[in-house]
Amino acid sequence: MNKRDIILDAMQDLFTEGHGGTASVSDIAKKAGIAKGGLYYYFRSKEEVLDALVERQYADLIKTCSALVDSCEGTATQKLATLFKGYYSSSANAPLDQHLHMPQNAAIHQKSLAMILNSLSPIVSKIIEQGVKEGTFVCDFPQENAEIMLSVFAFLLDPGIFYWTTQHRLQILKSIADLMEKGLSAKKGSFAFFYKQT
Amino acid sequence: MNKRDIILDAMQDLFTEGHGGTASVSDIAKKAGIAKGGLYYYFRSKEEVLDALVERQYADLIKTCSALVDSCEGTATQKLATLFKGYYSSSANAPLDQHLHMPQNAAIHQKSLAMILNSLSPIVSKIIEQGVKEGTFVCDFPQENAEIMLSVFAFLLDPGIFYWTTQHRLQILKSIADLMEKGLSAKKGSFAFFYKQT
Repeated sequence: MNKRDIILDAMQDLFTEGHGGTASVSDIAKKAGIAKGGLYYYFRSKEEVLDALVERQYADLIKTCSALVDSCEGTATQKLATLFKGYYSSSANAPLDQHLHMPQNAAIHQKSLAMILNSLSPIVSKIIEQGVKEGTFVCDFPQENAEIMLSVFAFLLDPGIFYWTTQHRLQILKSIADLMEKGLSAKKGSFAFFYKQT
Repeated sequence: MNKRDIILDAMQDLFTEGHGGTASVSDIAKKAGIAKGGLYYYFRSKEEVLDALVERQYADLIKTCSALVDSCEGTATQKLATLFKGYYSSSANAPLDQHLHMPQNAAIHQKSLAMILNSLSPIVSKIIEQGVKEGTFVCDFPQENAEIMLSVFAFLLDPGIFYWTTQHRLQILKSIADLMEKGLSAKKGSFAFFYKQT
């Protein structure tokens, strides 16, 4: 493994252990087993380490989601359900996520939301196009439709931006399912995977 | 006018003149015609002044939008068009907006997006309910539908988060119009005000 990844692993471990937020550059270097000067060769500050860790984490999440969709040979609806399940179960590091929700990390957080939307929207768009070919969806704007759908998950349902009750969150999921079904002329209930546990 | 508002006006004037980003607390106090100590009585830092200015600006925008809707006696669709037009023409201070799009102000920016969504969604929801009564809309989730629609404007179309071409922006507007029309069982073209200049 290269040194850059060793440093990111150390930062991630510190978060898992609950010290990520308060760790200094020295703490990160120590955990990585390298000299502080060695860390500075790769990153100028703790913020840069955090930024790179978040980017790596989301790149991994997107890779996982993409692979899940590629290996699924089902219909468009089944692929969307697989993607949705994969997205929510590829659990991001929870303490890291909480740290991102602090005001001083808003810039990194915002960048990660844009990254998710920009990376997942072509995947969702391709699935919608498959549905159009299969005759289960009707859609003139697959890419834009994907972006709108993902805005709901990346922004409206982000627990660091909005503080919905469980009940309201469920209502939003039912509403976006309803909107997608009607918007894509899909069978009623075909987006129920948004809100039904399977 | 109270001193707090005088300070916020000074900050706003500095942005209009192009010095808002670089202005120090002393500059703001000087512009407001008060002593630096006087400013510190109201705000602990420049960031707090900025935060309060943004909050005041968005509160004003929401008040304007709300008043426009209240004074409009048209159908639900006409009210939505009025709200949409009012929202985009109640021009926020452009240099301030640009300043908010800088990474160090991401927390304030994010808060303002959440504020817009939380404040405008009950207004949009009420208009959707009116449309249901008029028989032009069908909707089981007016509040959630409003939140989803506003996510597109507050997040996906925010020029500080995504950098769409004019053409792609137009496609997103056409797509959300199409989605809302189908989702609300509204007449085709009734949400054309999203993308057609009037």
